[in-house]
Amino acid sequence: MAHEAAEILASTRAYVDPELRRAVESLPGSMRRIALYHFGWEHADGTPAAGNAGKAIRPALVLAAVRALGGEPATAVRAAAAVELIHNFTLLHDDVMDRDTTRRHRPTAWTVFGYADAILAGDALQALAQRMLAEDPHPGAPAAAARLAACVVELCAGQHADCALERRGPDEVTLDECLVMAEAKTGALLGCACALGALYAGADRDEVDALDGFGRQAGLAFQLIDDVIGIWGDPGRTGKPAGADLAARKKSLPVVAALASGTPAAAELAELYAGPPGRTEDGPAHATRVACAVERAGGRDWAQVHAADRMSLAIGQLARAIPDPESAGGLLALAEFVTRRTH
Amino acid sequence: MAHEAAEILASTRAYVDPELRRAVESLPGSMRRIALYHFGWEHADGTPAAGNAGKAIRPALVLAAVRALGGEPATAVRAAAAVELIHNFTLLHDDVMDRDTTRRHRPTAWTVFGYADAILAGDALQALAQRMLAEDPHPGAPAAAARLAACVVELCAGQHADCALERRGPDEVTLDECLVMAEAKTGALLGCACALGALYAGADRDEVDALDGFGRQAGLAFQLIDDVIGIWGDPGRTGKPAGADLAARKKSLPVVAALASGTPAAAELAELYAGPPGRTEDGPAHATRVACAVERAGGRDWAQVHAADRMSLAIGQLARAIPDPESAGGLLALAEFVTRRTH
Repeated sequence: MAHEAAEILASTRAYVDPELRRAVESLPGSMRRIALYHFGWEHADGTPAAGNAGKAIRPALVLAAVRALGGEPATAVRAAAAVELIHNFTLLHDDVMDRDTTRRHRPTAWTVFGYADAILAGDALQALAQRMLAEDPHPGAPAAAARLAACVVELCAGQHADCALERRGPDEVTLDECLVMAEAKTGALLGCACALGALYAGADRDEVDALDGFGRQAGLAFQLIDDVIGIWGDPGRTGKPAGADLAARKKSLPVVAALASGTPAAAELAELYAGPPGRTEDGPAHATRVACAVERAGGRDWAQVHAADRMSLAIGQLARAIPDPESAGGLLALAEFVTRRTH
Repeated sequence: MAHEAAEILASTRAYVDPELRRAVESLPGSMRRIALYHFGWEHADGTPAAGNAGKAIRPALVLAAVRALGGEPATAVRAAAAVELIHNFTLLHDDVMDRDTTRRHRPTAWTVFGYADAILAGDALQALAQRMLAEDPHPGAPAAAARLAACVVELCAGQHADCALERRGPDEVTLDECLVMAEAKTGALLGCACALGALYAGADRDEVDALDGFGRQAGLAFQLIDDVIGIWGDPGRTGKPAGADLAARKKSLPVVAALASGTPAAAELAELYAGPPGRTEDGPAHATRVACAVERAGGRDWAQVHAADRMSLAIGQLARAIPDPESAGGLLALAEFVTRRTH
């Protein structure tokens, strides 16, 4: 299964990267330079780089959904590239808002080009995605464009909720609120990717909605596992500094579940999470102590069990649209891959 | 002519505002609140406000272009609203990047809701505009969506150029660079508004391009007059504090033309514009002295003459697509209105 997913992701990159690159190359010079840097195709000084544009999970879901519903993936390459452009537009803007300095092992675009240029490059990528769909003669394109635009609105609301939750104290945040936020911020675009694939395969409304539900639930499982990796993963593989989210007092799902557990470790964790981020008295071992407290309070186990629950829901939605397990194989492999990876 | 334009603008508001309001009301609560404030439909505390959503020039151009080419304006109300949403998305983001604190006589959205929320609300408005076009069954909608998205990319490049020009010294900026920037930042969307109207009227490629050229040139004339008003206009009418752009050392077109004039007043102006904005030694009369120097160096006359030249170019483009002066009357009235207003 992992092998199948890796193959799908690699072949997606081979299909979609040239389309994505062509779209980015069509931007005016100033915007192109920032986008090429963000995608890892250029260094900050404009010299070519090997490229490290992420795992291509969203475009892979688009193409796998087309295939699963009997369509021809080659017809949906633009839609797959458009989804990836939207994902990267949100990354550019989220990094500005969250003041994140590292992404995919490199300094974030705003640290290199400034806030204004990172905002503008994100705006341009959103527009580019919509342009690709508007210029796509495929009969599924208009509905795909509408759905992708509606998804962007949901992503914005999700990011707003994330920022609002981060401003509140650790004891003022419920797990349900965090799950709703994660569905909007992460689940929505994975669901939309699957829905776009269904639209490009000519699926009916019920199938499109079921595919959206599959991607949404798998997306939440993905976010849960991503949060686990963010705390206990190998920073050499995640591309982010170890313990950075804990040092910043990020209210990730395992942390909030741990805080809500009513265990002695929860009280300890609440104390460790009190006060502003980056206090000098935290010391270098602070993140490690937080991680251990989250684990002892059951946050890690909860995240893994809840991810499995969400995967069951995802599989149920998938079976509703695609009863034949063999046809659904690619989508399943991708969902299993992103929720079973350990880095 | 001014009377005709005022009537067109008023009837545009009556047509387009309900569509715009409906679109904004469809946003999730967090995004809706910021957008309602930005459009002047709500106060910062969420109570209803009278609304002061600008002059509706861009939607008026869309509808006037449809009419001028023999189409039915009622079919293009969504396109007109989409253009206005795009305009407002750029205002929200530009205010963040430029740190502008006043817009339409009120505090800008970021000063009320913070940077992150103003960025997100702008993102959501861009998406909303594209969603409206993607859901519009009109045969002109897909081409309009593609053209509007391409225009957003140009607007981003224009705003980038504006920021880059502002970072350079007054003696390191040429008038040509500023004109190119103003065409991308302001001309592009006015041109796009006219082009969208042409597309909704079923016009051919040449007519669409000519209408784009008309709007672009009229847009540049509009920007020139806007710059003149920004320096010499009545702040009670502009909605911006008097001399704010001069105090901020903004390189508006009359200022750059004055600096490039080679007159003794240009040297005086260069000295007044040297140093960082807001120096305490500037004193309250600084802006007035700058304005007088710009005027004596010929910056005000140049801007007015150049605006008239651009209007001639605009009218030439318009005649190319619409030889009958009576049909072209509405578009002409709008262009004359925005370039002859004194406030």
